Amino acid sequence: MLITSIMVGSSLQSDEGMWTLDNLPKKNLEEKYNFKFSDKWLKNAQLASVRFNDGGSGAFVSPKGLVLTNHHVAMGQLQKMSTKKADYVKEGFFTKELKEEKKCPDLELNILVSMEDVTKKVVNASTNENTDKVKNEKRKEEIAKIEKASSDKTGLRSDVVELYDGGEYWLYRYKKYTDVRLVMAPELQAASFGGDPDNFNYPRFALDFAFFRVYENDKPIDSKNYFKWSKNGAKEDELVFVFGHPGSTERQKTMSQISFQKDYSFPEYVKLLKYKLNLFRQYGEKGKEEKRRAKDYILGMENSLKAIEGELNGLKDKKILAAMQEREDKLQKLVIENPELKKDFGDVWNRIDSIQKKMISRHKEFYYRSASNAKLVGIAIKLVRYASEIQKPNEKRYEEYRDSNLESLKFRLLSPAPIYADIEEMMIENSLHLAVENLGREDEFVKLALADKSPKYLAKALLTKTKLMDVSQRKELLSGGLEAIHKSKDPLILWALQIDPILRKDRDWYDDEIESVQAIEGNKLSQLKFKAYGKSTYPDATFTLRMSYGTVKGFTDDSTIQIPFKTTYYGLFDRAESFDNKDPFTLATKIAENKSVINMSKPLNFITTNDITGGNSGSPVINRKGEYVGLIFDGNSYSHVLSYAYTDDKARAVSVHSEGIIEALRSVYKMEKLVREIIGE
Amino acid sequence: MLITSIMVGSSLQSDEGMWTLDNLPKKNLEEKYNFKFSDKWLKNAQLASVRFNDGGSGAFVSPKGLVLTNHHVAMGQLQKMSTKKADYVKEGFFTKELKEEKKCPDLELNILVSMEDVTKKVVNASTNENTDKVKNEKRKEEIAKIEKASSDKTGLRSDVVELYDGGEYWLYRYKKYTDVRLVMAPELQAASFGGDPDNFNYPRFALDFAFFRVYENDKPIDSKNYFKWSKNGAKEDELVFVFGHPGSTERQKTMSQISFQKDYSFPEYVKLLKYKLNLFRQYGEKGKEEKRRAKDYILGMENSLKAIEGELNGLKDKKILAAMQEREDKLQKLVIENPELKKDFGDVWNRIDSIQKKMISRHKEFYYRSASNAKLVGIAIKLVRYASEIQKPNEKRYEEYRDSNLESLKFRLLSPAPIYADIEEMMIENSLHLAVENLGREDEFVKLALADKSPKYLAKALLTKTKLMDVSQRKELLSGGLEAIHKSKDPLILWALQIDPILRKDRDWYDDEIESVQAIEGNKLSQLKFKAYGKSTYPDATFTLRMSYGTVKGFTDDSTIQIPFKTTYYGLFDRAESFDNKDPFTLATKIAENKSVINMSKPLNFITTNDITGGNSGSPVINRKGEYVGLIFDGNSYSHVLSYAYTDDKARAVSVHSEGIIEALRSVYKMEKLVREIIGE
Repeated sequence: MLITSIMVGSSLQSDEGMWTLDNLPKKNLEEKYNFKFSDKWLKNAQLASVRFNDGGSGAFVSPKGLVLTNHHVAMGQLQKMSTKKADYVKEGFFTKELKEEKKCPDLELNILVSMEDVTKKVVNASTNENTDKVKNEKRKEEIAKIEKASSDKTGLRSDVVELYDGGEYWLYRYKKYTDVRLVMAPELQAASFGGDPDNFNYPRFALDFAFFRVYENDKPIDSKNYFKWSKNGAKEDELVFVFGHPGSTERQKTMSQISFQKDYSFPEYVKLLKYKLNLFRQYGEKGKEEKRRAKDYILGMENSLKAIEGELNGLKDKKILAAMQEREDKLQKLVIENPELKKDFGDVWNRIDSIQKKMISRHKEFYYRSASNAKLVGIAIKLVRYASEIQKPNEKRYEEYRDSNLESLKFRLLSPAPIYADIEEMMIENSLHLAVENLGREDEFVKLALADKSPKYLAKALLTKTKLMDVSQRKELLSGGLEAIHKSKDPLILWALQIDPILRKDRDWYDDEIESVQAIEGNKLSQLKFKAYGKSTYPDATFTLRMSYGTVKGFTDDSTIQIPFKTTYYGLFDRAESFDNKDPFTLATKIAENKSVINMSKPLNFITTNDITGGNSGSPVINRKGEYVGLIFDGNSYSHVLSYAYTDDKARAVSVHSEGIIEALRSVYKMEKLVREIIGE
Repeated sequence: MLITSIMVGSSLQSDEGMWTLDNLPKKNLEEKYNFKFSDKWLKNAQLASVRFNDGGSGAFVSPKGLVLTNHHVAMGQLQKMSTKKADYVKEGFFTKELKEEKKCPDLELNILVSMEDVTKKVVNASTNENTDKVKNEKRKEEIAKIEKASSDKTGLRSDVVELYDGGEYWLYRYKKYTDVRLVMAPELQAASFGGDPDNFNYPRFALDFAFFRVYENDKPIDSKNYFKWSKNGAKEDELVFVFGHPGSTERQKTMSQISFQKDYSFPEYVKLLKYKLNLFRQYGEKGKEEKRRAKDYILGMENSLKAIEGELNGLKDKKILAAMQEREDKLQKLVIENPELKKDFGDVWNRIDSIQKKMISRHKEFYYRSASNAKLVGIAIKLVRYASEIQKPNEKRYEEYRDSNLESLKFRLLSPAPIYADIEEMMIENSLHLAVENLGREDEFVKLALADKSPKYLAKALLTKTKLMDVSQRKELLSGGLEAIHKSKDPLILWALQIDPILRKDRDWYDDEIESVQAIEGNKLSQLKFKAYGKSTYPDATFTLRMSYGTVKGFTDDSTIQIPFKTTYYGLFDRAESFDNKDPFTLATKIAENKSVINMSKPLNFITTNDITGGNSGSPVINRKGEYVGLIFDGNSYSHVLSYAYTDDKARAVSVHSEGIIEALRSVYKMEKLVREIIGE
């Protein structure tokens, strides 16, 4: 069934597209929906949209810096703010006044302020070079120069974004906020009702929302661009827009790239995730506090696992693969039959294919030559690298150590968020076990990292004496430069110094052998597509601001089951009662307690045909008037395939309904003041 | 997925089986469920189970003759009792005292009183004959003799039932009731909430129940065998039993028989159903009264269409077909490799295959050489045939005109239920159109039936002057014998006389050429299976009393969606609100009005792994103690395939929960007195 509405070639289907704001599908919106937006409408949406730098989206919903996002986007911070005694994840967090709002340890929010096409500069910088390696270096140096010049000049966070797999480069400038305070979060059980079984499924009944407030100089900012709250929320069949930051998609990838993912990369990732998930589940069973500590790791991995398995499943669908193959064949035929195109583009697919082959032989190393899933290992390696990278000229550094990125890097490195020694030790030990198991004792990394010790012994030794948990220690090492690093006796720093050379060698190999070819051939492939189809399409997702449009619409499952466009509070209670209130279908305490005052008819969640993917979590759903009608928090199981191709047959984006949020704030959480701020009364 | 639990050969899976009461799976129940039933437990269940002769099941639920069945089983009678002014289908029917209970026009209920194995007698009667035709005649004559002897002796309705496709013959004796009165029926919208879209789907939220009471001598009978009401109703994972009358299954059919259904019979039936459904939908749009008249036709046809299409879909599943083929191959191999078996059974499949081939060339005639979907045509033909059949010795008559069946025949023929001339005319006209279209002008039947008139003209002519709507006219013709029939100037009687010879010729051809071979080879095939596997199995369904067992259990849909074992009133309200209360998801008026007093947590519907099929509608679901816990009313979409093979992977029987019935009677319909009668307080 899916095949009927899959994008083939450049002819876009229905509501397809994650559009950059410089290239919106104005014609389609006018023709299909009789909708024209004003510059003011668009500018407001742009400036009211928020990127959560730890992976998610959000939006301003009041003029006083109030930001609404998902609970699961907020959860990283909630977990970091929680302790054994105050578990905000489990119990929720509620404030009555500004002074109760609590600062997040390391949350950075970005607002896209301006965009500038810098494709020519970036591409021209490497045109005259001969080797892939040097071309790639010149390209990256040029990007570094553009970013630094912009951030020096404007003071804004300045990122050069690669779009269309290198077909275009744009300078995105962001206003950056780091004083972000938690205003309100419901209990996890209300936010993630149904747990892993209901995740990526629909009907859903989740209050997956949380409120933050942005401060500057210890005061809430004036967020004059914000989304006004809709009086009635999303209605069936209406046109809606999602502004958010989809993370990544693979729609422009070649079949050879997709095959690599399908046959090598994803299966390995699934294996790794299952191993780690199992590890954390066992850890969480040790006790109440361990359960609390493991919670967000487990939820995150369950989510990734389901998403990746869903994508793999989508790729097993022969119809989808055939459609993708047909699209590629069509383009190749065009090249083969045209001598001029053949000269310029004839070698593109072979070259891309050749780097996939290189990756096949080494992809396991990129999964297992690492222990940096342990937070402290990541910190140690960053401290070590920082000290040496900043010795280099700006444009010669690794991207994350360039001047324009240092502020964000330091913000994260010096986060006061708690780090738990037992989890760290477990992670290091098991990363090393995995490395031995998958790469063998003779692997260069394994030999260097273990130095004949057992993973268990080494992990214990590293963790017992390290002081990196202490933020002031990190600060000292950060400011002390190379000298401080080389003087340090911290076992994790010593270990990082020991293993970093091999990790750098791997990264350099990747940059020189893989990324370089990818950038060059990606650019060519995009040029070819532009030539063939015009710029009627949108680039793959890059965790930058995109607009998608769609309609509020149910679907038909299993050929006959009618799935309605929305759910209600009645449905939440039905699902809980239907499972006799068993975990994960237990009603959150506050919801159960307030049963008698909840208006059960109020909509809770709803679905739309918008084209979204991971990273869109927390995105605002707005109506024609630019009013806030819903909050993206999930896609249904049919939407996993959206990584490869858009379909609106059964794939749906899932949102919390704006009315459902108000009902919860009022009847369940008694936060009338917050409600008044949102609805502007 | 389905394949994992499909029955292959004789090794039954999990909770498989529609068991006759003489051959219950005692060993499996003991071993798997540690359950042993007493003779008393079984006898009570047998005598408390009721067959609705117009197609359905039911049960006594009080000692005062109170019978509980589905609303959709009751609907035929409800429709017949309704008029333009009092639409009990739409509005429901409610009584406060016995005297308000309303007699059904033509409802016959049967209670199975005794069973006797008469296989030898029936089989021996034809052993010494030479031709298939005569063997079949002798077989049927013997059956007629047995039935007559039994009914003469006991006064009970006596039916010889063919089991195992002719492998066994049993004499079933029934206590028959024809004074059955309607006690209570909810509004159609409550009983069939969700309409056609939700039919055969789950989760469901339907109050699909109705109450009748059985009278004798104008007084409620003493039904000392009845199911006591369970205090709590069905609970997750508990063992439950269904006693009911499954209509027909095809599990013992050969691949050649299945192929005929799949490739010829079912597709033709689907075509016919769609045509007629369309016809009635158009008719129903003419006005309010037409809509009322068309209602139960439409519901019935929608139901059949979905069931047949579901079965066809199941047969398109290559895994299912492969499993069925493997089962047959296994048996054939057994025969081929054993000279003795080969001698006796070597020709079985060829012979069965040969009659399928005969049917292929004529199956359309059996669909289209008929106008008897028009009720009056059926009546006219029965009157004509009755007059001549009763001239013959009992055992030479068509089955339905044998002495033992005459009472039931007359009861139906003389029903005072309304017959609508406009519908009759439409049915005749369109039946004739279909005959012309599908059989051609040169067809023997078409020529005789139309006699060069147009279908439209003929239908009008027949309907304008017929008096058969009048029950007293039918009574006169029935008692007047052949003379009255031949004197009659009623155009429908004249037309019946004209077309009956060709219809009889068709039926005789079928009996002599098809049924005869089927009976002989079916018997052989069963003998072979008994030899090969022992009598460890159950016969295909035959609309006679069967027991099935299973557990109350949810399932996992679409690989990840958790479907709970029950639904609640919350869910009903959720589904209505989720569709903005649009048809067919509108709340029934009385339910909407009593929203505030309904205990929303009460279970409404639930699912079990019981092996059921059409005809089980209205069956009681009872627990180990023999208490009433639920009322079968549907199967989910995965259960369509149960016609061919049992599976409990996702296939589920769907019931109204006993607690849900009580909640409706109390909070919605205010029938406390009925509740007290049921729960015995």
